[in-house]
Amino acid sequence: MTRNDEEAVVDRGGTRSMLKAGLEKEELEGHRTLYIGVHVPLGRRTHRRHRHHGHRHRKRSRERDSGVEDGHESPSYNTPSQRVQFLLGTEDGDEEHIPHDLFTELDEICLRDGEDAEWRETARWLKFEEDVEDGGERWSKPYVATLSLHSLFELRSCIINGTVMLDMRASSLEEIAEMVLDQQEVAGHLEEDVRKKIKEALLKQHHHQNQKKLANRIPIVRSFADIGKRQSDTNCMDKNGQMIPPQSQPLTTEGKNDVSRENSAVDFSKIDLHFMKKIPPGAEASNVLVGELEFLDRPVVAFVRLSPAVLLNGLAEVPITTRFLFILLGPLGKGPQYHEIGRSIATLMTDEVFHDVAYKAKDRNDLIAGIDEFLDQVTVLPPGEWDPSIRIEPPKNVPSQEKRKIPAVPNGELAEPEEHGGHGGPELQRTGRSVWSVEYGIFNQCENIYHEFVSKLSELLFTFY
Amino acid sequence: MTRNDEEAVVDRGGTRSMLKAGLEKEELEGHRTLYIGVHVPLGRRTHRRHRHHGHRHRKRSRERDSGVEDGHESPSYNTPSQRVQFLLGTEDGDEEHIPHDLFTELDEICLRDGEDAEWRETARWLKFEEDVEDGGERWSKPYVATLSLHSLFELRSCIINGTVMLDMRASSLEEIAEMVLDQQEVAGHLEEDVRKKIKEALLKQHHHQNQKKLANRIPIVRSFADIGKRQSDTNCMDKNGQMIPPQSQPLTTEGKNDVSRENSAVDFSKIDLHFMKKIPPGAEASNVLVGELEFLDRPVVAFVRLSPAVLLNGLAEVPITTRFLFILLGPLGKGPQYHEIGRSIATLMTDEVFHDVAYKAKDRNDLIAGIDEFLDQVTVLPPGEWDPSIRIEPPKNVPSQEKRKIPAVPNGELAEPEEHGGHGGPELQRTGRSVWSVEYGIFNQCENIYHEFVSKLSELLFTFY
Repeated sequence: MTRNDEEAVVDRGGTRSMLKAGLEKEELEGHRTLYIGVHVPLGRRTHRRHRHHGHRHRKRSRERDSGVEDGHESPSYNTPSQRVQFLLGTEDGDEEHIPHDLFTELDEICLRDGEDAEWRETARWLKFEEDVEDGGERWSKPYVATLSLHSLFELRSCIINGTVMLDMRASSLEEIAEMVLDQQEVAGHLEEDVRKKIKEALLKQHHHQNQKKLANRIPIVRSFADIGKRQSDTNCMDKNGQMIPPQSQPLTTEGKNDVSRENSAVDFSKIDLHFMKKIPPGAEASNVLVGELEFLDRPVVAFVRLSPAVLLNGLAEVPITTRFLFILLGPLGKGPQYHEIGRSIATLMTDEVFHDVAYKAKDRNDLIAGIDEFLDQVTVLPPGEWDPSIRIEPPKNVPSQEKRKIPAVPNGELAEPEEHGGHGGPELQRTGRSVWSVEYGIFNQCENIYHEFVSKLSELLFTFY
Repeated sequence: MTRNDEEAVVDRGGTRSMLKAGLEKEELEGHRTLYIGVHVPLGRRTHRRHRHHGHRHRKRSRERDSGVEDGHESPSYNTPSQRVQFLLGTEDGDEEHIPHDLFTELDEICLRDGEDAEWRETARWLKFEEDVEDGGERWSKPYVATLSLHSLFELRSCIINGTVMLDMRASSLEEIAEMVLDQQEVAGHLEEDVRKKIKEALLKQHHHQNQKKLANRIPIVRSFADIGKRQSDTNCMDKNGQMIPPQSQPLTTEGKNDVSRENSAVDFSKIDLHFMKKIPPGAEASNVLVGELEFLDRPVVAFVRLSPAVLLNGLAEVPITTRFLFILLGPLGKGPQYHEIGRSIATLMTDEVFHDVAYKAKDRNDLIAGIDEFLDQVTVLPPGEWDPSIRIEPPKNVPSQEKRKIPAVPNGELAEPEEHGGHGGPELQRTGRSVWSVEYGIFNQCENIYHEFVSKLSELLFTFY
């Protein structure tokens, strides 16, 4: 198996906030489409699980280039829904892009100069959100994540404008931090001391709700095989949906231990074993880190997908490998805003469809299509009729999301069969169209302009940015 | 008092769907900004209630031109929120634009060639939505209107692309239909027989849920003074918010009877007196009419504000004057979609802030800003965590919406004071920013581009339309 794509291939678009002053639109646009290096299709090894070859100790960080995989061009998509359905229908052949169950954790920090601080877990997700309550004393019951549309659009902006690094090869949080900061630096000036401070912040200790304050902190060294066994013995209790066999998770020592040796010490005194039982076998972690850093005057945003997933000890409250990181660090005073953006990405990662998009995305635009497809499916509560601070208990059943994954009529106009004559309720309203195509959707003409629309929209946003 | 604005001044933008073929973008754009006639400020008569002068029997239909009222230019708005706050802060001086309580009713029709049909009431709103259930047998309990974001964007598209006629002077539904159809015709070819059929459809009888099928249908002729008295004697029970004194409603016969003489026969056998008691005194009606007409191949959309409000007998289930009409008629097969768009506009009309915007709007853009401001405030439920067919009981309390009406810092950047350091819940997240400004909001730069953004967005949409 050959991997020639070790050199970094990253979409620099996200770091343009650093550039803004003094650059013309053309430069910005040129910059946005800049790719470095050449992408070579990944080898197929679907039937060779438990094996992670590749160049050990070498770092790889690239944005998988859209449309050139397997030598065929991506089709033009009319809507985000079509783009998502196409993406989900692709057989990548690389086990690194097979969706696993996810555990998502939101950690937050507020760092003032001269003060010490640590990351504190504030919420977690299997299927529903649970919040740390009562000053960190206990967990809330799982509830339906009521988000603000405002925050979802802010998140969309983060993905459009932030750094997106897909299939980063890293063995530790320190390496991840270095690569994310490299990306920030490539596009704009990042002062050495600011870079140093951001890195220090990213490496601060993580405090989890279940962590006993006076517990024995001597780490218990366990092998990965043991952890894998523990996970395999566990039954899934909370999460619906397909079980991913634990074998598909890269848990064997071969090809892995070298990557994460420094993380091999797992402190079981810090793990909530009751909760651990609820984590489906083979699940991976998605870590959302948002925080206010006093010395920042603009936000640093990064969406990272690791390949392979790595056990970053102490980062997640449960000892499972991390696949995704979302990092949003910005100036003081925006904490509540960042908290909500963090909840938004965590909720998206929990969404059955976006979750698959995150695993399979080939570039930033796939992620944005994933957000738009999600937005097109959300239910809205009017501000004057609902108090958003009320927690809604999970319903007994939720409608199947399978219809979101499969095109009604592939690549066609007038894709969805529509009911005739009836005056149906909300549940009859679902169509394959997106909120974006919707701007002209009911007028039934000229729907094949999603790409143009989105690219012009992006152009506008990038100009302003 | 002089009214020189009797000639129609209407934004033709909305009828461009009729034009599309063969017109270049420039023509379309020129068309969009075409205004006919001259707008003259309305006279002030705040202290002369009960009087409706003006030229009787003459029709007036105009789009009140933005920014020239009282000789001052509109300020440039950074966000829809700022535009809404500015609009709500203006003292119009014209009682026709003083917000009243609203009763909103959704009526639907499905008309196939050769078949007879009538409008059927399917839902109504005071503060919360009530639906006709069990095949028309009874009303549901009031519930929190769960809308789809999809439908809200479709509604937005309707307001952008449809006919908007503010302060139409008409005395009957027939006259309203004529004027709406005139607007459709001005911009594009509307075949004579299609026009005739649309008009016939609009004038079909309205069946209300409470209407007893075998009830005595002999109309009881009541004077407007009686109806006014009946309303004044009634106590508001359901609706929170300010009471508008019934005197502010144009109920006296002077200047009014002439306008709606034909409507003066009210059939009390058809009125649910129990529900009538819940209607606040002085309330006006907002009638939402959506339907499928087999002979249409594209939708006809109109948002109409009447001035003065007119009793259109048989249209609303309660005998109160109608201020607003929203009409959406389109091809067969889109019924469920139109139903949801109808629910969306009805919910907006019920929203405390959009309701005021609807009364005070000077043009289409005010309405769009109202929708955007509303969108910026909504709570979102993820598709995989919620079944949208579940009805949510109204909460005991909802947060005050007053904060939406008043600017935090007038016209300033960094308008909202933000909490420092805390990691607050959703309720701390409310800011003055909109989902549109949000696209760059957290990056804290260059927020003063709302106008440019929206106009470019509209340009895009209009090009596609």
